[in-house]
Amino acid sequence: MTKKPISPSVSKNLGGEFGLIRELLAPLAQNPTALGLRDDAAVLSPPAGFDLVISTDALVSGVHFPSQAEARLVANRVLACNISDLAAKGATPAGCTLTLGLSPDWDDTYIRELISAFGRGLTAWGLELWGGDTVRVPTTGFVSLTVHGFVASGKMLPRAGAQVGDAVYVTGVIGDGWLGLQQNMGEQENLADARKAYSDPQPPLAFGQKLIGLATSALDISDGLLADLDHLCESSGVGMDIHAADIPYSTAGQGYLSANGALENLLGGGDDLQIGFTAPPENGDALRALAQATQTQVTQIGQVSRAVSSTDKPTDSSSPLAVLRAPNGAEIAVATRGYRHF
Amino acid sequence: MTKKPISPSVSKNLGGEFGLIRELLAPLAQNPTALGLRDDAAVLSPPAGFDLVISTDALVSGVHFPSQAEARLVANRVLACNISDLAAKGATPAGCTLTLGLSPDWDDTYIRELISAFGRGLTAWGLELWGGDTVRVPTTGFVSLTVHGFVASGKMLPRAGAQVGDAVYVTGVIGDGWLGLQQNMGEQENLADARKAYSDPQPPLAFGQKLIGLATSALDISDGLLADLDHLCESSGVGMDIHAADIPYSTAGQGYLSANGALENLLGGGDDLQIGFTAPPENGDALRALAQATQTQVTQIGQVSRAVSSTDKPTDSSSPLAVLRAPNGAEIAVATRGYRHF
Repeated sequence: MTKKPISPSVSKNLGGEFGLIRELLAPLAQNPTALGLRDDAAVLSPPAGFDLVISTDALVSGVHFPSQAEARLVANRVLACNISDLAAKGATPAGCTLTLGLSPDWDDTYIRELISAFGRGLTAWGLELWGGDTVRVPTTGFVSLTVHGFVASGKMLPRAGAQVGDAVYVTGVIGDGWLGLQQNMGEQENLADARKAYSDPQPPLAFGQKLIGLATSALDISDGLLADLDHLCESSGVGMDIHAADIPYSTAGQGYLSANGALENLLGGGDDLQIGFTAPPENGDALRALAQATQTQVTQIGQVSRAVSSTDKPTDSSSPLAVLRAPNGAEIAVATRGYRHF
Repeated sequence: MTKKPISPSVSKNLGGEFGLIRELLAPLAQNPTALGLRDDAAVLSPPAGFDLVISTDALVSGVHFPSQAEARLVANRVLACNISDLAAKGATPAGCTLTLGLSPDWDDTYIRELISAFGRGLTAWGLELWGGDTVRVPTTGFVSLTVHGFVASGKMLPRAGAQVGDAVYVTGVIGDGWLGLQQNMGEQENLADARKAYSDPQPPLAFGQKLIGLATSALDISDGLLADLDHLCESSGVGMDIHAADIPYSTAGQGYLSANGALENLLGGGDDLQIGFTAPPENGDALRALAQATQTQVTQIGQVSRAVSSTDKPTDSSSPLAVLRAPNGAEIAVATRGYRHF
C-alpha cells in the first residue's frame, strides 16, 4: 500500500456536500430507486402494492450533537432525524439497521443508556430493529441509522411535484431546534419547548402519512427552512415567495427575534425536523381538517410563484429559488440559508 | 445536559460485542425479520415471492483497515464484507445505502478515489446505490454500508439448520485475508494472492446463490473459521468436528505455517470472506458439480457430530462447539478462535 497524501481540507474543491453528491455519487446512482439522490429517501417498488421507503442519517459526536450530550439525546435525535425523512415522504415506519461507532469516551453506562433510549424510541415510532453493526472507533463516536418504511405503490410524497399556484406550508415552528441547542441562554422558562425540540424532536409522522393525496411535494426541514425549500424548488423546477411575517415561531423564538434580530439563526440553524410541502389552494380546507385531526400546527408561509427552467443556474444565496419577502414585497436577503455540513 | 462520566473502557463489563448484542440489542429486535440478531442478515418477506435480505457492515480507519490504506482498498473491502453476507445467505444483490464519515486526513483525491472504486465495485457486484448520508468526522474516517438482496421467499440460507450427520464445508482458502494484511513479510512472490485476498476480496457470490436447496446452513467466514463455525453451531444447536489437516490454505498460507507454525493467526485472524456451510452427505456430488460450474474451491473440513442442548453453556475457548482435531482424533486447542471486535 502506498501512503495517501495528507491534507486538512475535506472536499472543498468538490463544492462541498452537494457538489460531491452531484459529481461523484449521483453518477453511481442512475436507477429509478435512487431518484438521482435528490430526494429525502430512496424508494423500492416490490410488487405487492407497497413501495419500500429507505433513508439513512448518521450523527457524529462533536459534529451533529455536543460531545457532552446525554446518551438519550443521541438516541432520540438519530431516530427523529430518520423518522422525519419517512414522515416527509408519507411513509409508515417499518424497520431499521443501526451502526454504532463506539467511542472510548462512551463507558458502559453511556452505551446502555444510548441503546435503552433507542429501544424506547423504536417502540414510540413503531419501528423494528432489523440488524446492524457495532464497531469500535479510536476517538469520535457515531450512530448511523438506515430506516425502511412502506407507502402505497407510487404514492410517495416527492420533492419534485410543486406546481405554480400551489400554496407552501410548513408544520410546527421554525428555529426551536437551533434555539434548543444553545447553551448560553440560561434557564429561561420559555425555552423548555425549544430544548425539547432539540433533545427529543417529534417529527409530524401521522400528519405526513395523511398528506398523500393532498400535497404535491414535500420534504423534511432539517438543514434550514430556506435552504430546504430551495432544494424542493430545484427538484420541482419552480420558484416560490415566502412571506417572512407568516413563518411560525414559538414564544421563545419570537422572544429571541425581538431581543437579537438574528433571523438567519432561526431560519438557517437547522434541526427543525418539520415538513415543508406544497398543495393546491383548493386543498386548504382538507389540510386544516387534517391539522386539527392530528393536532399538528400547519402554517401557510407562501406560494409557488413561477416556473424555473432546469437550465437556470444552481441555487446560491444571491439568486435563491425560495425568495423571502417582507410585507411590502421587498426581498429579504439572508446570508445563512441553511446549515452547511462541510 | 449533564456531562457524561468519562471512562476509557468500552463495554468490557457487557461481555464484549456479543454480550452487548445479547443483552441490549437483541431485546429490541424481537421480530421475525431480525432473526434475534443471530444471523448474518435480516430478512423481510414482502408478499411477491421474494424476501429482501438486508445486512450492514461498517469499516473504521485504523480499526478495520490501516489508516494508510489506499482508498480503493477501503471501497473494495466495505463492499466485499457486505456482499459476503449476501453470498452466505444465497441472496442476489439489489441495492445499498452508504454512509461516508469523511476524515480530515482524506483529501479530495482520496475521496474521489474512494467513491470511484466504490462505483466500480457496485457494477462488478450488480448492486445499485440507493442513497445514504455523507458526514464530516473530526478525526477517524469510516464507511458504513447497508446492503439489500433478494431471495425466493423462505429460502434464505440460515445459520440455524445444520443437522447431525451433515458434512461441513468451506469455500476458498483460510488465512489469506490475515496474511495479506501483514506488512512485515516483504514482497514474496507467493504472497500476491494473499494480498489480493485482503485488498480486493472476492466472496463466492454465484456459488452462494446456488447453495439454496443443497446446504442446510451457511454463514460468512469473516471473524475467523472456528469462531464463526462456533456461531453456526450455537444457532443450529449442534457440535462439529473439524479436521485440521483438511483446512484449505494457499501456497503462501502453507509456507507461513511451515515457517512459523502459528496456526491461530490463519484460523483466527479473520477477513476470510468465505462461506462456511453444512450439507447432507448425499448432496456431495451436486456440490462438487456446482463448485466446478462456478469455479469455486470447496473443501469438506469436517462433519456435524452431535446435538447440543440449548441449555448448554455458551461457547468459550475451553469448550468449543466446533472442535478442531488432529489426524489421530486428539483435540487441538487454539487460543485465538476469531478476531475480537472489542
